[in-house]
Amino acid sequence: MRVIVPATEGRAVRVGAGRRVRVTDLEGGQVGDVFALAADDADDADEHLSASHTRAATSRLFPVAGETFVTSRRRPILTLVEDSSPGCHDMLVAACDPERYRALGVPVHASCADNLRASLAVLGLSVPVVPQPVNVFMRIPVAGDGRLSWLSSISRPGDAITFEAEMDCVLVVSACPQDLVGINGHHPTALAIDLETEEMSDR
Amino acid sequence: MRVIVPATEGRAVRVGAGRRVRVTDLEGGQVGDVFALAADDADDADEHLSASHTRAATSRLFPVAGETFVTSRRRPILTLVEDSSPGCHDMLVAACDPERYRALGVPVHASCADNLRASLAVLGLSVPVVPQPVNVFMRIPVAGDGRLSWLSSISRPGDAITFEAEMDCVLVVSACPQDLVGINGHHPTALAIDLETEEMSDR
Repeated sequence: MRVIVPATEGRAVRVGAGRRVRVTDLEGGQVGDVFALAADDADDADEHLSASHTRAATSRLFPVAGETFVTSRRRPILTLVEDSSPGCHDMLVAACDPERYRALGVPVHASCADNLRASLAVLGLSVPVVPQPVNVFMRIPVAGDGRLSWLSSISRPGDAITFEAEMDCVLVVSACPQDLVGINGHHPTALAIDLETEEMSDR
Repeated sequence: MRVIVPATEGRAVRVGAGRRVRVTDLEGGQVGDVFALAADDADDADEHLSASHTRAATSRLFPVAGETFVTSRRRPILTLVEDSSPGCHDMLVAACDPERYRALGVPVHASCADNLRASLAVLGLSVPVVPQPVNVFMRIPVAGDGRLSWLSSISRPGDAITFEAEMDCVLVVSACPQDLVGINGHHPTALAIDLETEEMSDR
């Protein structure tokens, strides 16, 4: 099943344990903010994929293929199984939000934080705090002195990253609407979520 | 005013805007997990010092002296004003919690997450989600390939880090009880919080 995430918008999908889900950069150069919530806890939604717990589990700034993202309760939630992109992803910076755009001089602007909230609302869900996302295709290199650079995404059209769900979860993907700094080449575009269905995984 | 944070415990203090607060490693080699909550929002306590928003604001893995930590709403909350330690601090890994110690084979163990909750409860406060802490005196170097190492703290007896509050806030310091991995040299010790009083700041 394919769900298109239109440019500047977000979409939520339910992913069953053991299923694979792929996020594709359709036109290239587009960052996706990925969030995952534990489905058995999604009513109060306080268990979520946690960047800081994942770094503690993997001892890496970002997992490599075969490694697992964990939740705020240190339970495995997604495993990174495949990556056809150049492998630049970020797990250091917060989702963009209305405050970010106000500071950049734009009082009303779509944001990944609002996209998360709106996508979850469609499923009747909410979060008490916006978790730190997994920013796929986002290029934030870290220098030896700890300094971060904000560079344009170098993913190519059709590049994709694939996760396998380690538990029933709700996955949210926001096609980052940032057009004021260069992370999306100043031109936000769409992403696609491809969800393995039961038939696909059983064949 | 000095508040001793006994080994393996936590303490919360209210810090007024413009006041300075110092965290001292009394015996050396001890990690402190520091949390800060916006006091004007501390009833529901969902605005907190956020590592991921701070990295976005400073474009650094950890602020240098003169730089500011911001909240989950991107408001300045603490500025790092002075650091007499060797300068090894961490803002990448989650607070230790009961799940962490269970995974290490110890079903019941003090943790920084529990210390945060207990310290806030004394003030009648709580948090919906444990924020990622600022781990002062914690040595987690990042290699060029993104790999993290967990090394023993190298702060010396009396080394201290000083913050200035940018807003009224609640500061929590946990003397990390981790004794199963070497970050505290397998020997957790006490910290001190020194809070500038009105008289001190007015002199």
